[in-house]
Amino acid sequence: MEDCVFCKIIAGQIPSDIVYHDKTVIAFKDIHPVTQVHLLIVPREHIAYLTDLTEKQSTLVGHMILVANELARQTGIAEKGFRVVINVGSEGGQMVPHLHLHLLGGRRLSEKMG
Amino acid sequence: MEDCVFCKIIAGQIPSDIVYHDKTVIAFKDIHPVTQVHLLIVPREHIAYLTDLTEKQSTLVGHMILVANELARQTGIAEKGFRVVINVGSEGGQMVPHLHLHLLGGRRLSEKMG
Repeated sequence: MEDCVFCKIIAGQIPSDIVYHDKTVIAFKDIHPVTQVHLLIVPREHIAYLTDLTEKQSTLVGHMILVANELARQTGIAEKGFRVVINVGSEGGQMVPHLHLHLLGGRRLSEKMG
Repeated sequence: MEDCVFCKIIAGQIPSDIVYHDKTVIAFKDIHPVTQVHLLIVPREHIAYLTDLTEKQSTLVGHMILVANELARQTGIAEKGFRVVINVGSEGGQMVPHLHLHLLGGRRLSEKMG
């Protein structure tokens, strides 16, 4: 997608602090972190909203979760605990219309979840 | 698991407000809702923490997400937006050690995500 910030990061046209990449996803540091560890796990394919996900694409989310688990281990937050979040649309707080999973950790997260 | 509250709900030994069920997951209303719509999507299989998920089981999370999308549509929050959250361990705010996905909607959710 021409005007998508995340597609530009994936294409290397916008710099970012990439911490992981494979054939289907990349992960980089959120530029406005809300926790000590705040990574975004993003599919290379441009899927705008979680609700656009087809049954076939749903395995992609499973993979994103496995990557989140691995990054939680690598960043040292797996033991104490962490949170994964996918925001959808305006009220959900989705800032970029390209599917992404937030990995949050490093402090005790509130039960309100936003 | 004998002492697991969610396993008891799944087995029908503890009452709950079930809104969806299929072969692999059930969904019910959170008893301490933090948003107007607050549902829990729970695999029937007892997996304690997200970090326990094997590669083979990762397709289960994809299915949980598809169920979340469908329930977001049914409860009328899909259009305005919503949030899905998985808490892991103590700092993540996981209250019950049986994997579950929170579906949250009905108000503008904060960017802090907890």
